[in-house]
Amino acid sequence: MTTLEAQESPAGTGLAPAGDARNATRTIAAPLRRALAVAPDATAVVCPLATESYRELGERVRRLVAALGGLGLRRGDRVAVLSVNCHRYLELHLALPIAGLVIVPLNTRHSDPERCYSISDSGTRVLFTDRAVAGVDELGVRVVDLVGEYDALLAATEPADLPDGEDAPGEHDLAGIFYTGGTTGAAKGVMLTHGNLVANAFHFMACWPFTEDTRFMVVAPMFHAAGTIGALATTWAAGTQVLVPAFTGAGVLDVVERERITATLVVPTMMDALAVEQAERPRDVSSLRWLSHGSSPAARELLRRTHATFPQASMLHIYGLTETAPIVTLHPDEQLRLDGPRAMSCGRPAVGVEVTILDVTERTPLGPGEVGEVAIRGANVTAGYWHKPEETAKVLRDGWFTSGDLGYLDEAGYLFLVDRAKDMIVSGGENVYSAEVENALYSHPAVVEAAVFGVPDDRFGEAVHAVVQTRTEVTGDELVAHCRLTIAGYKLPRGIDLQDGPLPKSGAGKILKRELRDAWWRGRDTRI
Amino acid sequence: MTTLEAQESPAGTGLAPAGDARNATRTIAAPLRRALAVAPDATAVVCPLATESYRELGERVRRLVAALGGLGLRRGDRVAVLSVNCHRYLELHLALPIAGLVIVPLNTRHSDPERCYSISDSGTRVLFTDRAVAGVDELGVRVVDLVGEYDALLAATEPADLPDGEDAPGEHDLAGIFYTGGTTGAAKGVMLTHGNLVANAFHFMACWPFTEDTRFMVVAPMFHAAGTIGALATTWAAGTQVLVPAFTGAGVLDVVERERITATLVVPTMMDALAVEQAERPRDVSSLRWLSHGSSPAARELLRRTHATFPQASMLHIYGLTETAPIVTLHPDEQLRLDGPRAMSCGRPAVGVEVTILDVTERTPLGPGEVGEVAIRGANVTAGYWHKPEETAKVLRDGWFTSGDLGYLDEAGYLFLVDRAKDMIVSGGENVYSAEVENALYSHPAVVEAAVFGVPDDRFGEAVHAVVQTRTEVTGDELVAHCRLTIAGYKLPRGIDLQDGPLPKSGAGKILKRELRDAWWRGRDTRI
Repeated sequence: MTTLEAQESPAGTGLAPAGDARNATRTIAAPLRRALAVAPDATAVVCPLATESYRELGERVRRLVAALGGLGLRRGDRVAVLSVNCHRYLELHLALPIAGLVIVPLNTRHSDPERCYSISDSGTRVLFTDRAVAGVDELGVRVVDLVGEYDALLAATEPADLPDGEDAPGEHDLAGIFYTGGTTGAAKGVMLTHGNLVANAFHFMACWPFTEDTRFMVVAPMFHAAGTIGALATTWAAGTQVLVPAFTGAGVLDVVERERITATLVVPTMMDALAVEQAERPRDVSSLRWLSHGSSPAARELLRRTHATFPQASMLHIYGLTETAPIVTLHPDEQLRLDGPRAMSCGRPAVGVEVTILDVTERTPLGPGEVGEVAIRGANVTAGYWHKPEETAKVLRDGWFTSGDLGYLDEAGYLFLVDRAKDMIVSGGENVYSAEVENALYSHPAVVEAAVFGVPDDRFGEAVHAVVQTRTEVTGDELVAHCRLTIAGYKLPRGIDLQDGPLPKSGAGKILKRELRDAWWRGRDTRI
Repeated sequence: MTTLEAQESPAGTGLAPAGDARNATRTIAAPLRRALAVAPDATAVVCPLATESYRELGERVRRLVAALGGLGLRRGDRVAVLSVNCHRYLELHLALPIAGLVIVPLNTRHSDPERCYSISDSGTRVLFTDRAVAGVDELGVRVVDLVGEYDALLAATEPADLPDGEDAPGEHDLAGIFYTGGTTGAAKGVMLTHGNLVANAFHFMACWPFTEDTRFMVVAPMFHAAGTIGALATTWAAGTQVLVPAFTGAGVLDVVERERITATLVVPTMMDALAVEQAERPRDVSSLRWLSHGSSPAARELLRRTHATFPQASMLHIYGLTETAPIVTLHPDEQLRLDGPRAMSCGRPAVGVEVTILDVTERTPLGPGEVGEVAIRGANVTAGYWHKPEETAKVLRDGWFTSGDLGYLDEAGYLFLVDRAKDMIVSGGENVYSAEVENALYSHPAVVEAAVFGVPDDRFGEAVHAVVQTRTEVTGDELVAHCRLTIAGYKLPRGIDLQDGPLPKSGAGKILKRELRDAWWRGRDTRI
């Protein structure tokens, strides 16, 4: 609390930013303008379909801006995109917000009804897609075929200037609506402004070097925050993005070797596949200096294997959320701490982001070591959920976004996540954090993937249950015995389902634990 | 220009930032809060008078915030500081804006009447000073003696919490008024907001690594933008600032060796003294990995000598202005280009800053290679001059700040400065850029400092004249003959004054060319 008495109209408070009220340098056009000014002939994007210099990318974006006007779109209209990773997706990610429109990236793993929900909820007027979507015609949406129609549309249009007048979008204008969850009709559209995405780029650049020599490989899907996490930073530095349409361990290692990739972001399931493939058929991956990973926590053994796979790389654990555009915490040079107590931390708040831990019921800040809900603030934090003021009010309070994640900070600001608030199991009055049990399972060499959740139990309310994908022969009893080495008895799984195949996943590669869990709870009252 | 038709109230335009309308993470308190959260025991500041951890710095700042309230100050009040570089200055640089006050740093090289002008013009209510200032009593200013009174004031006050409520200052609140020029009563107070200074820190961090291991040596005076250029970035990373109260080549090299300095910013006159001292009495300067320099252009020979002095250091040329908080362009790894055509460029626009070249009379953008006025935009650009709306309107137009510097961009966005607009000499109808002539003089080994300007000439209107400090015996004719090797005849000095001692300088270490020039023009009509 300030101790200073307020004046009625204090001098110099609330000054308008320069003459430039919209803050042009904090919009999506700014990184592209810089790349065009400093390195027009540098390679902007490499993908199997095309390679483009910044000059070429810039011209295609300018044609697209003009073509969007020709489609009858007006400022603030929503435009959906459904596509595998490709250069056209990158063009749309830039051109739509630059033109003052709002991009709505659709999940490639969703069903058509789920896609139609996002299209309808967002009021999308035009869909750019690389595949047919059943039911979209009834929604009155103009469909542009990315494969058969898009290039012709660009070719038929004269390039516009990049919008840069008073009417051009500003820092606080909406750039995109990103649908989260998405396994039910209750998916929420996260609104991110130009300023949110630009802030995230600066938070990233303050930790990681992005330069003209950066060759960033995009393997995460571009409809997801993880797929575009480095897009603005790489463009600002006039570096190169190398787009991978579909993940396989062999394919990605080939790209790293052939394209001399310097930086990338992967998710834990990819790390495992890369380690297996590199052990069998080693490639030259010495160019990879910067390896970030996110999405879900990775087990220590997996981190060790990944470090062994890419020994030259500095490893960076990123904890992020769609609502925070996405970076919250960063754990740089994680490979140096794999034997210490902070190996499983997701790092410290990025420069520009603040994290506090709130008591789940009292909403008051907690001290070091105390578990509560992770709350975040920063210029990267969403303005809210599209047309859902009640849902927005639930998560945005007193300037802080509450994440639904449970965790604690240690005395040096390292964040440890213990679980999703809704994935915590209450068994016989004890709180069991599913992530802790999963980590115990992951430390067994036979375990590829594990999901732990609560199932109905007449005696304890909930019982700890696990579904595990194994790579070698192992019994449930053996796994329980292994867990007993590191976690308390009341946390041990009471039942384990073993399977050869992978667990169900979201488009972002996260295990759909709720789906597994819900099968057990059907017909019962679900927890709130 | 956008090609999209505007809607009356487009969806999602002008969204308020999250629930946090003041953008707390873009205020001066944010870096300090992060350092306190992640590394309270790390060394924040080292100076001859004191060494403080972040915990100690934080507590002193919190005491100061409380003490400021006790002085009867209210939000938005101006508080001046006059001091050599010391830990108390750093505390004031943080605490005054954090408390919602406005810091007015006074130039230590000014005369008392000049100081009183800044105090009076800004409406300063309290002055923290390490020396007496004649005339300040008549201005009704409360004076706090930094040496005798300040520590007792802190000791007598209970620490306040760092202000962080709705009433705490926000991104667009004024943080400081920085007086520029200052050799005449017409000095202008440059208003910089919290957001301006935070933006500059992010622009710096996107190019230079600031980490917990950063040991940034502050040799530029802390009343000047150069003296605090790394303050927020270093604090954000929880690195260490080592403050040097007074520059001598020997003293600074001792500090580099003893404190294992990793990064610093110097001005060209310092580079020369450091090179001379290091040649005579070499220190271990291997810790210095990042060496930036700014203020005025440096000659190629001086850059070579500096590189030889600090062979381990990556050199970074910074072009900046008080009005841009201060970074405009950056030339990283400049030492690699000293033999090429871009050696004398001040680099490319920092990430987050845009630069364009405007025709001096038409105000239209010029193409590569064309000389015009350097115009800048970005979140770092000043909101204007304190209580000088006409002066503000002259420099802030259509969202761009016009710098008064003449220069051009090459085809890869490298900026070359040719002169201050008002230092250009018009001789016989030809434009002569004084900086070009100075560079020719600087390339002679006998030249320590050189200033070139126009003097009255009945035949040519103006004649090129030089004042030169020499280190060894040399004649004016010899210098003219040397210049003739690189520049055209009409640019050659018609007269040269040689002297042993240094040229007159501003507090920032810039040569006061106007003073030298004005002596020739007294009694005549001065140019506009």
